[in-house]
Amino acid sequence: MTYCVGIHVHDGLVFAADSRTNAGIDHVSTYSKLHSFIWPRERVFVLLSAGNLATTQGVVKRLHQDCAQDGPNLRSVATLTEAADYIGQVSSELQRQQMARDTSSTSFEASFILGGQIAGQPTELFMIYPQGNCIHESQSHPFLQIGEIKYGKPILDRVIGRETSLETAARCALVSLNSTIRSNLTVGAPIDLMILPRDALDGGYRLHLTEDDPFYRDLGERWNEGLMAALDHLPHFFWEDRNSG
Amino acid sequence: MTYCVGIHVHDGLVFAADSRTNAGIDHVSTYSKLHSFIWPRERVFVLLSAGNLATTQGVVKRLHQDCAQDGPNLRSVATLTEAADYIGQVSSELQRQQMARDTSSTSFEASFILGGQIAGQPTELFMIYPQGNCIHESQSHPFLQIGEIKYGKPILDRVIGRETSLETAARCALVSLNSTIRSNLTVGAPIDLMILPRDALDGGYRLHLTEDDPFYRDLGERWNEGLMAALDHLPHFFWEDRNSG
Repeated sequence: MTYCVGIHVHDGLVFAADSRTNAGIDHVSTYSKLHSFIWPRERVFVLLSAGNLATTQGVVKRLHQDCAQDGPNLRSVATLTEAADYIGQVSSELQRQQMARDTSSTSFEASFILGGQIAGQPTELFMIYPQGNCIHESQSHPFLQIGEIKYGKPILDRVIGRETSLETAARCALVSLNSTIRSNLTVGAPIDLMILPRDALDGGYRLHLTEDDPFYRDLGERWNEGLMAALDHLPHFFWEDRNSG
Repeated sequence: MTYCVGIHVHDGLVFAADSRTNAGIDHVSTYSKLHSFIWPRERVFVLLSAGNLATTQGVVKRLHQDCAQDGPNLRSVATLTEAADYIGQVSSELQRQQMARDTSSTSFEASFILGGQIAGQPTELFMIYPQGNCIHESQSHPFLQIGEIKYGKPILDRVIGRETSLETAARCALVSLNSTIRSNLTVGAPIDLMILPRDALDGGYRLHLTEDDPFYRDLGERWNEGLMAALDHLPHFFWEDRNSG
């Protein structure tokens, strides 16, 4: 399994992904699921991937190959929407090729989150479904998730709005990943984090956080302490004060 | 869908359940999923139910009927384990009867959490699978969940241990329910909460919390504030202090 989240706030975009892949419990491995395509000052795309690893790797490879050729590619698309449609086409084409060859009932499905900016245009964020179509994030909850999304959703639901700062959104994404990793064995560190400030049109900030990384460890510990403090400040049941009084 | 959680700490047992049921989006209703069977000073059982509503209602009805008759019933079982086995048998029997009549491919499955105490014996907690077999909670994570379990699991994973106080465990259960309700439409208030102090062998404390209940509302608001404070105290990224310095 996998867990990836993309957040679109007023100041820019945040992307975070775990790196565990597994095909059965005997085939657990580590692959980056965060892929960036950067042409400084021109255009920058970040792609998060979940699903069949052969499909997602095939898609990323094709995106790179296409850039060196005529025809649609990430360098030539006029808008982010066009980029999402193009990636959706590549993805469903690869899935169809695999299914045509398949003799078992393997799922070749893959989902993606695409975000980025083209010079002179706004930042945008999309989720690309296995079927190749796409949606953008909602105005009231400006984030998108793929993979094992449920464990890490409550904190995003409570915190993330358009006006959230980039760094708060990034910390919130890390907490969301951290909670998922603690509760589900199929999602695992290291975590890839990428922050694209609006209009920077460069590689932004990129962190690769292992479980032993002092910053990531500190974040996990302080979050635990914060939750305990929050729990301590919840209202008492009516009998507690009676009993203690 | 449904979300129920049972917690077994040293000082006793905590049970919490939402009350939304839905069979398709046009059939949303409210039913209590927390059922108690209390013989003061003798024995007390609490049953949480998830799954097919006809099955779970049928099981609860049978448990009450059986108490008035010879043969195994909650009054006659010698241990909590025997009670869990008996409920598992009733549940799979009812499911088999339904399946024999069924012409569609409806799922009649139901899961239960059973907890309680018989005089002179320890408190115990079990999850009863649709297949009728059961497990008890783990030593390191002494809680069990049924239904839509993922949204509310991280907070339990982080907080609950054997030494957690009954009231902290109950507040944690409410937060776990509150997070699930915010993130998933198929889980909804009112919340039924029941707390059985060890060796009390009575009805303990039982709360029925609507969305407008002042205590529940206060709890939700204070939890939000606590999370924001926890987020504010997370470590800064290296460039934040540089930028501000």
